[in-house]
Amino acid sequence: MDVKGTPLSEIGLYGLMNRYQQKAGSKQSSTIIGMGDDSAVIAPAGEYQLMTSLLFLEGIHFDLIYTPLKHLGYKSVVAVASDLLAMNGKPGHLSISLGLGNKMMLEMVDELMDGILGACERYQIDIVGFKPTSSLTGLSISLTITGSVQKSELVTRSGGKATDVICVSGDLGSAFMGLQLLEREKRVLKASGDVKPEFGNSDYVLERQLRPEAKIWVLESFKKLKIKPTAMIHVKDGLSAALLLLCKASNSGCRIHEKKIPLHQITLKVALELNFNPLIAALNGGEDYELLFSLSLTDYEKVMNELPEQITAIGYLTEREKGCRIFSSGDQEIEIQAQGWKD
Amino acid sequence: MDVKGTPLSEIGLYGLMNRYQQKAGSKQSSTIIGMGDDSAVIAPAGEYQLMTSLLFLEGIHFDLIYTPLKHLGYKSVVAVASDLLAMNGKPGHLSISLGLGNKMMLEMVDELMDGILGACERYQIDIVGFKPTSSLTGLSISLTITGSVQKSELVTRSGGKATDVICVSGDLGSAFMGLQLLEREKRVLKASGDVKPEFGNSDYVLERQLRPEAKIWVLESFKKLKIKPTAMIHVKDGLSAALLLLCKASNSGCRIHEKKIPLHQITLKVALELNFNPLIAALNGGEDYELLFSLSLTDYEKVMNELPEQITAIGYLTEREKGCRIFSSGDQEIEIQAQGWKD
Repeated sequence: MDVKGTPLSEIGLYGLMNRYQQKAGSKQSSTIIGMGDDSAVIAPAGEYQLMTSLLFLEGIHFDLIYTPLKHLGYKSVVAVASDLLAMNGKPGHLSISLGLGNKMMLEMVDELMDGILGACERYQIDIVGFKPTSSLTGLSISLTITGSVQKSELVTRSGGKATDVICVSGDLGSAFMGLQLLEREKRVLKASGDVKPEFGNSDYVLERQLRPEAKIWVLESFKKLKIKPTAMIHVKDGLSAALLLLCKASNSGCRIHEKKIPLHQITLKVALELNFNPLIAALNGGEDYELLFSLSLTDYEKVMNELPEQITAIGYLTEREKGCRIFSSGDQEIEIQAQGWKD
Repeated sequence: MDVKGTPLSEIGLYGLMNRYQQKAGSKQSSTIIGMGDDSAVIAPAGEYQLMTSLLFLEGIHFDLIYTPLKHLGYKSVVAVASDLLAMNGKPGHLSISLGLGNKMMLEMVDELMDGILGACERYQIDIVGFKPTSSLTGLSISLTITGSVQKSELVTRSGGKATDVICVSGDLGSAFMGLQLLEREKRVLKASGDVKPEFGNSDYVLERQLRPEAKIWVLESFKKLKIKPTAMIHVKDGLSAALLLLCKASNSGCRIHEKKIPLHQITLKVALELNFNPLIAALNGGEDYELLFSLSLTDYEKVMNELPEQITAIGYLTEREKGCRIFSSGDQEIEIQAQGWKD
């Protein structure tokens, strides 16, 4: 990590706030007051307001040895916005608090904020709060996003019914395999000094780990097809956790076909290279930022007619008593389990 | 700090989330979905929605050696809610993220959450998000609060005009003197081993530091008197910073009478004891959580007739070119300055 640059003490707390206030333009007509007062003032855009937060801590959620700050900024917005997408909502306004250690130079905060601003531009989000503070330790990124949804469009985790088809967008486990690859290269770098990392043609999993996108296209597809999932959740801590949470909220069980879980070919290649089971990456890895949802049979048919490549049916909901299980490739039924203390 | 107790790994991430979801009842009819889904769902209560965040970091914003976790939880809610009060708004919904180091036991999280829940009960705030995560270092508390205000009731920092009277609620510098007292006792304890701290009859400043209240009574008084400040700001980093920010936003200057700055008699007593200038505590100390506001002359008279003890006029706004100055006790004019990198 480059620690040369302009110390933050030179620009000062208020200087830093002014700097990004100028860079953050307003895209939302609902923003009455953005940064610069005691609180943001927003005119409600939809019938319901959505709000969710995340806290990204150095050493827990990211490693600055291999994470470019710009990507980190972008990814943190994607992560928090994905929670709103899982309600079928539209992200609108972002509030940022940063804990900045003494190794952070102005140029580094600029890079991080460039990533955040880039994601806000991409997803049409207004930054309405920016509070930097000093930190004794590493970098802390705290984001809160609000958004809106019409009452009739709201999708929760709890509307799933037995026989609904369980679908997932994109593919799973790739971000986790990207992380494993970066961790391996970190060990190699440590052992061999400053050499250029060798990633081969594994860009896909690295991009999934370092610079994911929020799956707005899924919501746009629902709108286009005039359908609405019965329940939906954001896959951030692996498929197992997402399935258990959706089933619990919907008071259902589920049956998942292991063979149907979508794995990208590069994920399979890297998993083979690293001698790691790619299914474990999909089930218990994290940061895929895909959407898991249940569909009525009628809506499922519409989706499969239009998006057979982008959306995968992996199983179905059952009665609660039947539990949450996976059919393994050998057609055994295995209980789904998720790690408890993991974020 | 007591580190005995139940390790968090025993209850797990989801166990911890469920624990406080059960404890956090709903007081606001606008809460459609609180904790337990991907994001909170809120029905807008006023014409405008307010949102603000804070990040409290161990070692920067609090010292667990002398800060009871319950008080810390209460105070952090007061701190973030005060930003909404400064807009003349009503706090409504709180989202919490916690970074929990490995020294944190379940009982300690319970204490912290007891304080947070207590403040939410006191101020009628619903907890609509709770996300714990592990932390490599100390405790991180990230709070976001939303609230509402009618369009015609909104007060910003920017409406002040020359000749408006500048007023402040309560008294200033007391929380900072409380902090100095606690820091002295910490040094004494370190030197002498485990003896009981001696605070004499200085409870007032300790309470101001450890368990402040949000100044909702000020807003209630405005409503009762049917007045509205022309501009308002929350005094959290000392009077100087608050004055400069309000004046800048209102494109004004100001004249403040040093003699008028409200100092509590216990603040004066402790300042004398510690050989510290109490005015410096008021101007550059922090965490008073009082409200600073400007009033038209007519509204000022109404306030002084009703609340001569609780609200103090300390000066007036001027044209921008005249700068921001204090009349010292010797009737000299001194330029107001605030520390830049301070939070």
